[in-house]
Amino acid sequence: MSESKLQLTLKTAKGTKDWADKDMVIRQHIFQTLTNIFKKHGAITIDTPVFELKEILQGKYGEDSKLIYDLKDQGGELCSLRYDLTVPFARFVAMNNLDKIKRYHIAKVYRRDQPAMTKGRMREFYQCDFDVAGTYDAMIPDSEVMSILVDGLTSLGIDDFKIKLNHRKILDGIFQIAGVKDEDIRKISSAVDKLDKASWEDVKKEITVEKGQSEAVADVIGKYVKLKGSLGEVIDTLQKDEGILANEKAMEGLEDIKLLKDYVESMEIDSYISFDLSLARGLDYYTGLIYEAVTAASAPPKDAEEKKEQALKAKSSKKNKKASKTGEEDDASAYVGVGSIAAGGRYDNLVAMFSEATGKKSAPQIPCVGVSFGVERIFSIIKARSNLDKISSVSTQVFVMAFGGGPEWNGLTKDRLRILKKLWDKGIEAEHMYKGKVNPRKQFDAAEKSGAQVAVILGKEEYLEQGKLRIKKLGPEYADDDGELVDAADFVQLVEKKLDEMKEANGGLDEITKLVKGI
Amino acid sequence: MSESKLQLTLKTAKGTKDWADKDMVIRQHIFQTLTNIFKKHGAITIDTPVFELKEILQGKYGEDSKLIYDLKDQGGELCSLRYDLTVPFARFVAMNNLDKIKRYHIAKVYRRDQPAMTKGRMREFYQCDFDVAGTYDAMIPDSEVMSILVDGLTSLGIDDFKIKLNHRKILDGIFQIAGVKDEDIRKISSAVDKLDKASWEDVKKEITVEKGQSEAVADVIGKYVKLKGSLGEVIDTLQKDEGILANEKAMEGLEDIKLLKDYVESMEIDSYISFDLSLARGLDYYTGLIYEAVTAASAPPKDAEEKKEQALKAKSSKKNKKASKTGEEDDASAYVGVGSIAAGGRYDNLVAMFSEATGKKSAPQIPCVGVSFGVERIFSIIKARSNLDKISSVSTQVFVMAFGGGPEWNGLTKDRLRILKKLWDKGIEAEHMYKGKVNPRKQFDAAEKSGAQVAVILGKEEYLEQGKLRIKKLGPEYADDDGELVDAADFVQLVEKKLDEMKEANGGLDEITKLVKGI
Repeated sequence: MSESKLQLTLKTAKGTKDWADKDMVIRQHIFQTLTNIFKKHGAITIDTPVFELKEILQGKYGEDSKLIYDLKDQGGELCSLRYDLTVPFARFVAMNNLDKIKRYHIAKVYRRDQPAMTKGRMREFYQCDFDVAGTYDAMIPDSEVMSILVDGLTSLGIDDFKIKLNHRKILDGIFQIAGVKDEDIRKISSAVDKLDKASWEDVKKEITVEKGQSEAVADVIGKYVKLKGSLGEVIDTLQKDEGILANEKAMEGLEDIKLLKDYVESMEIDSYISFDLSLARGLDYYTGLIYEAVTAASAPPKDAEEKKEQALKAKSSKKNKKASKTGEEDDASAYVGVGSIAAGGRYDNLVAMFSEATGKKSAPQIPCVGVSFGVERIFSIIKARSNLDKISSVSTQVFVMAFGGGPEWNGLTKDRLRILKKLWDKGIEAEHMYKGKVNPRKQFDAAEKSGAQVAVILGKEEYLEQGKLRIKKLGPEYADDDGELVDAADFVQLVEKKLDEMKEANGGLDEITKLVKGI
Repeated sequence: MSESKLQLTLKTAKGTKDWADKDMVIRQHIFQTLTNIFKKHGAITIDTPVFELKEILQGKYGEDSKLIYDLKDQGGELCSLRYDLTVPFARFVAMNNLDKIKRYHIAKVYRRDQPAMTKGRMREFYQCDFDVAGTYDAMIPDSEVMSILVDGLTSLGIDDFKIKLNHRKILDGIFQIAGVKDEDIRKISSAVDKLDKASWEDVKKEITVEKGQSEAVADVIGKYVKLKGSLGEVIDTLQKDEGILANEKAMEGLEDIKLLKDYVESMEIDSYISFDLSLARGLDYYTGLIYEAVTAASAPPKDAEEKKEQALKAKSSKKNKKASKTGEEDDASAYVGVGSIAAGGRYDNLVAMFSEATGKKSAPQIPCVGVSFGVERIFSIIKARSNLDKISSVSTQVFVMAFGGGPEWNGLTKDRLRILKKLWDKGIEAEHMYKGKVNPRKQFDAAEKSGAQVAVILGKEEYLEQGKLRIKKLGPEYADDDGELVDAADFVQLVEKKLDEMKEANGGLDEITKLVKGI
């Protein structure tokens, strides 16, 4: 025992980390901002367990299923850690026989992936999901989800992004046109999905050599998946394409995209969208619209500068908007190769898959559409853009001190506690030093570190003989201000007044809000 | 595959559950209330991973270690789900070589216990922890933690509770006085810990028959652990006890308790405290003060009424206060047998245990003290006391509708989206029906279900021909109010005005706050 103890390394498990201090402040700001947006759209939140029955997760993630964490068999049910929040959500909807729900969920998910900390790829990470389940008219919830995606990122100060968008029905139609058999479609789709990181030559090789399709099949796929541009441009091209016109599935998808174009234009978020036929997304469960927001700024630190320059050269975020609106070439390639910061899509069959698996003969189809924000990557971007010196992780307002000395003096601990209790009862953030006797210098140092704005001072004679407290503003600009002596009986009111004055002087905004808003 | 699929049962894993709707609103209210209190005391929050290296958790929980969940060995490190938030906190402090930190952490923990849903005992459950690490003067942080415990429960509307309090040094002293060998102390302590559920006869049997102590040893232990009452009463008794006076360890503990008495009196929370020598707490790592808040109201539903009656008969919360202050008998027995709703203690060696395990020869001791709120049990109490009809899980403010008809009419979907976007951009919670054409009745029904207070109506002629919108308050009391026609260009201002009016009429408080405050 003691021998093995000596070998203990203090660390967190691979691909996981602790969060604290300013990082935590930034992350909580992200959660709060997104929560406020989700609520604006009438969503409620749910919380599902971190682990699910193993069979619930099985067969939902295609090739990625190998990344699922299992719990050890300690007797009883076999369980796995959730891989995303979408499958548990569908299980929840099916299990409760809901016919509709709009929900958001901010929680951790688990993937046994190769960690890449600098890219924000972890084994334990947060997802922030918003999903709409229910049978509605085409593209109405979908376009609202797109607007949430845009609102989410821009509210967090990120506006140099593009939403790559595609439709599974168009993609599947293309594979049919090319002559891919139905049972091969998902694996060819997952090869195409690599086009954001690999060249067409490499992907073609995977399609032909590894996945057994002919050169001719690959060439037809290649022709289509190179198409990208604004919604209007690509719709125009596809509407003239004879292959598409003759394919029922692709035409269904195209009808959706035309409707979506109207709706996103109504909400003036069309400029963010790049219709990109190479987007495939790995997960098996998508059935309709799919999308991914990418930004040059989410590149890893090493080559971030280069990518940023590249992106800036290609366009600024404002030029971007104009470019799409005037129909100029809409080149998302400056964003290629960096991770997506939000992604989602429509998955109409997942809930019914669960209902049917329980043996129900005619389980209702509950169509769903949603978006998931990549908090860790968004965090990296905001952190890189923030002046960390200005972020404080504590929010102490008042520091209570006792001045005095001599062998008889006891540090007035009991009196400090009495004073503190009155402040806490009024909801005021207040601290003191957890010491009996301590000199004034150390107390001022501790007050400064705590970020407190006001000191309440128990002077030996003043307090004990006259029942008076001294209330003083803190900070270098108040070094010469001796503060005011007030009756201990009603000191809280004056503390509140001084805090209000200092808040007003500060513009009334907390630091993180000012940072993100660039104030 | 398809056969096994047919056998799928849609459920969450044993001892876990989904949280949604009103339950979620209540739970989030608990989290927010406690967070605000923790922040008042200058605490920051940290987030540690859900799983730790297995060896980090080993040997920290005594007999309860068998309840730890392990992850399956899928290659790489062996990991376990965290059992509490305290051990990960100590690991964090040691790993980062911190000499002090005040932190709160609200997160899920995992125990392979026998679930008892009605008692709020789950395998996955939340803990809300506040801890102070650092070398400070005796009982100053400890008494602050007690005040946080009291503030937390009373702020949540629970004031019929008692804090059972003891000191590990006094308890260990008693075992020494009785003649228990040092190496047997922890296992005898864990037998004594069962006194809240079992009779002294049963515990004595465990001490003698199962754990091999003599009758005489058990009788001495029995004499002491029956002592309970106000701090003053039990201090008096112990100060006159020759066994205690002669035992160094017990006297150290007693000095702490005397100091604590002064401090909790200064903060006027002494009336909640019952000094109870039978409290032992199961966990190995405690070294000083230990405490547990218990309440009759946390009893399981079946016998809740009986327990409540019993408690009420014994005392009301106000009588309680008086009783302790005037030194009347302070009987916590009415609270016995029900689960604790908050608990904690001092653990001075846990951080050093981690530091030393890494091979450091002279790792500094970082003393810690903290409290953990039992959210699930607190939740059960609040839920039982709430009028659930009054709690709404959505917070929609505005519902956008389109009225019209005829074969040409398209439902004005694009226009609704334009209007909605303007509301969302102003931070207003707004919804519509996700349908193209829909009749007014259905839209009003949907608006009512959403809880919206104001409707924005696009009338066919009014909107299309005159550019006007109708803004109308919702609710039975406004059935005859036709609302106002305004220019579509500047409708948002009027919506905000109407929302303000309705908020004012509502007293400006949200439902859950009113419920908890008993308004």
